[in-house]
Amino acid sequence: MANAAELLAANAAFYAAFNAGDEAGMGRLWAHGDGVACLHPGWPVLVGRDAVLESWRRIFTAGATLTVTCREPRAWPNAEGGMVICYEQVGGQLLAATNLFRTEAGGLQLYHHQSGPCAGPSENGPDVTRH
Amino acid sequence: MANAAELLAANAAFYAAFNAGDEAGMGRLWAHGDGVACLHPGWPVLVGRDAVLESWRRIFTAGATLTVTCREPRAWPNAEGGMVICYEQVGGQLLAATNLFRTEAGGLQLYHHQSGPCAGPSENGPDVTRH
Repeated sequence: MANAAELLAANAAFYAAFNAGDEAGMGRLWAHGDGVACLHPGWPVLVGRDAVLESWRRIFTAGATLTVTCREPRAWPNAEGGMVICYEQVGGQLLAATNLFRTEAGGLQLYHHQSGPCAGPSENGPDVTRH
Repeated sequence: MANAAELLAANAAFYAAFNAGDEAGMGRLWAHGDGVACLHPGWPVLVGRDAVLESWRRIFTAGATLTVTCREPRAWPNAEGGMVICYEQVGGQLLAATNLFRTEAGGLQLYHHQSGPCAGPSENGPDVTRH
């Protein structure tokens, strides 16, 4: 069973590949089995390794030089691998992300990522007419 | 191990409680253990059952009568319980959601929910300068 440190290391590898625009690295990070998905903000739901990796290829080849800083990552190991939740600072925008890992071929592989707009950790929050 | 039908039923119960503003129902749906979290769009990251249930209480008592229609739910059982991904139609706004379930006290309990803005399933998507 994975521990929190291993989950945080896998999570850090994901953001390193993201910031490096490392398409091959993304390919190594993402799982190969069933139930691989990615919910980028503003994109349709992407299901399947091929669709997910294609999205990263498009993001990396769009020429945008994004730097995503992962803040306050928290990891919870579980029977599958584990969950990491963190903030993502992208320029002046703050997002919150869910990253799900599972053990596959002996290592932790990312099988789901969702990020979306959020409030800061010290903010009370919301427009409660949206959930 | 849960199967897809059980996951979809648990997912439907979540949206039923949501639409009914059923605070007690939410309490029964959400897990009790460690690693309970919720990422509402525009809110800070919420960790822990108490913080999550408090957010639903605030949403339900805000007086907004939201109807959230779950569309195209897809379920993947795993060693923990399983993952459901779906679209959420809220008025004219389309969101995508991740709902994570685990088996606890013999039943599937929700331990994580994130929803955020997305494109429609037939849309090609994105402004790739955001991820």
